[in-house]
Amino acid sequence: MKTLDNDCFLKALLCQPTPRTPIWMMRQAGRYLPEYRRVREQAGSFMALCTTPELACEVTLQPLARFPLDAAILFSDILTIPDAMGLGLEFVEGEGPQFQKPLRTAADIEALPVPDPHDSLGYVMDAVGLIRDSLAGRMPLIGFSGSPWTLACYMVEGGSSRDFRKIKALMYEQPHTLHRLLGKLAEAVGLYLRAQIEAGVDAIMVFDTWGGVLSAAQYRAFSLAYAGQVLDQVRTHHPATAIPALLFTKGGGQWLEAMADSGYQGLGIDWTTDIGEARRRVGHRVALQGNLDPMALYASPDAITAEVSRILAGFGHGSGHIFNLGHGILPDVKPEHAAALIEAVHTLSPAYHAGSTT
Amino acid sequence: MKTLDNDCFLKALLCQPTPRTPIWMMRQAGRYLPEYRRVREQAGSFMALCTTPELACEVTLQPLARFPLDAAILFSDILTIPDAMGLGLEFVEGEGPQFQKPLRTAADIEALPVPDPHDSLGYVMDAVGLIRDSLAGRMPLIGFSGSPWTLACYMVEGGSSRDFRKIKALMYEQPHTLHRLLGKLAEAVGLYLRAQIEAGVDAIMVFDTWGGVLSAAQYRAFSLAYAGQVLDQVRTHHPATAIPALLFTKGGGQWLEAMADSGYQGLGIDWTTDIGEARRRVGHRVALQGNLDPMALYASPDAITAEVSRILAGFGHGSGHIFNLGHGILPDVKPEHAAALIEAVHTLSPAYHAGSTT
Repeated sequence: MKTLDNDCFLKALLCQPTPRTPIWMMRQAGRYLPEYRRVREQAGSFMALCTTPELACEVTLQPLARFPLDAAILFSDILTIPDAMGLGLEFVEGEGPQFQKPLRTAADIEALPVPDPHDSLGYVMDAVGLIRDSLAGRMPLIGFSGSPWTLACYMVEGGSSRDFRKIKALMYEQPHTLHRLLGKLAEAVGLYLRAQIEAGVDAIMVFDTWGGVLSAAQYRAFSLAYAGQVLDQVRTHHPATAIPALLFTKGGGQWLEAMADSGYQGLGIDWTTDIGEARRRVGHRVALQGNLDPMALYASPDAITAEVSRILAGFGHGSGHIFNLGHGILPDVKPEHAAALIEAVHTLSPAYHAGSTT
Repeated sequence: MKTLDNDCFLKALLCQPTPRTPIWMMRQAGRYLPEYRRVREQAGSFMALCTTPELACEVTLQPLARFPLDAAILFSDILTIPDAMGLGLEFVEGEGPQFQKPLRTAADIEALPVPDPHDSLGYVMDAVGLIRDSLAGRMPLIGFSGSPWTLACYMVEGGSSRDFRKIKALMYEQPHTLHRLLGKLAEAVGLYLRAQIEAGVDAIMVFDTWGGVLSAAQYRAFSLAYAGQVLDQVRTHHPATAIPALLFTKGGGQWLEAMADSGYQGLGIDWTTDIGEARRRVGHRVALQGNLDPMALYASPDAITAEVSRILAGFGHGSGHIFNLGHGILPDVKPEHAAALIEAVHTLSPAYHAGSTT
């Protein structure tokens, strides 16, 4: 573990004592910030923002200038890998991501290249380098990727989906073809995260946005197994103590025990999971990250503080909790409400770390 | 319990021995059947179909003529109660249900009447009477309602929602106002289900379609507590042995223990829950109903049979399992695939009931 001015996030992720509960917010660099909207406007498109390292660096740092957060997270999109694989990513206003060339056949999957991240995804590593230099050891930088399952969902559906009909048809009818796709994606994600680590990130997070649409058995076979393969690839080069890893499956609250056995140091949980029960279920094996309902940030600062208090009390005393939302911060949340959340965690959490050695 | 030619469903719901696992399908009377689409066309609108007892009866019976199912379920909609409360229900093609007068203020909620089901919902009881007479004791008829929480979601949002922003704002900012609404709805739902029982249904089911968007603590306070109040009202008049009750919270797999303590005889589970683990968690307290992924019915009959086999083996030996989908059957499923599902349950389930006394 690198020496950092603020190592609260990394220590909590390794379940080591901290003086308080660290906090960051999923999508903390995002549309709810007027300064982000200005840069996004200037960039012209969302992908231009992602692919211009100086701009990606600028928006990554914006929330840190405004709020006392405990970690930075690389500004990028989970769909950079499918784009680098040649699917042609576009963001259509109001409709979300779409691929010009979604995967339609087993031959499409067979022909899919595993991209060299230093080549087609070099812009991401350049952004990581710039951010690392700008942070100058003040706090950790989190790198990330979509999980193989979640990337496969977008690649087969062609974009966002409400029912995941195409990928489920593939899963039920041609499971071997889907496994072939997931194997390629696990390799691509592993290489991508290794490149991010080598460019300077201090921790990694795998976002499994759509694991929750699966049955329990399917989750283990089609999502968790490949998130595990990704980590295995990373671990042959970077031990957990140097680069701890987080896995977040939205809607995965029923499968925490299996997730806790997957090798990741921390698990993200959404707001539907009781954090106290989650801790009892996974014991001391992993840290837990979460889990305020993003909708709670529409409420008054007093209501936000009450929810923070409830979650901190639910987790209880000791290390191993990273405060976060249960999903990304919403675009129309008032920045003052995010400030109220962070203030509440700073004020209320030290009581749960009394006797901490730091 | 009434004497019925086929009492397999009712016995399984009371965890009594049966020779095989009973099966019915949520939305079994629905758009996937060409004979349903003909009657729906004739009725002119979905609400005309619901409010014309002869037509509601006809479509209720259609799947029973085609498939060897073990229960009939009243054809109706969960939004009949808000409609009877004066909100003005409309079904807009391609957009789902919408209310002309959604609840906007605490005064709207205060002014809301609790409808006498024999008056404004008489068409439902008339349909129940016709169906009961047509069934003539062949198999049980299930009555149903939406849960107070789920009805409140539609009434406050004004229709379907992706983010439940309005009702969550009410929950975080004015919880007492929301409790007032839920209390009224619990009373209305209780009266409605009692009227259905008095008109002839043999079991009742409460559909909590949107309980899964809540946090664990919110689920208990805003959804489960009121589903419990509904049942308390029913139970002062109709004991569980006479009219067993089912509770289905979509996305409620994390809260099965709490649901199992709510007084309902059976719990519906969606496909994300491992049915074997669910059984271990709730023990012998309740029956379990589910839980094939509705998307699995797009797969081949062989793949469907494999999934049925996996679910039956997951639940294991003994009574207390009612086979069903994990959510409603989808409109474009081929009827032959529903037939394959039912056939698989008939063929494969007796092995799990060897030694049954019936």
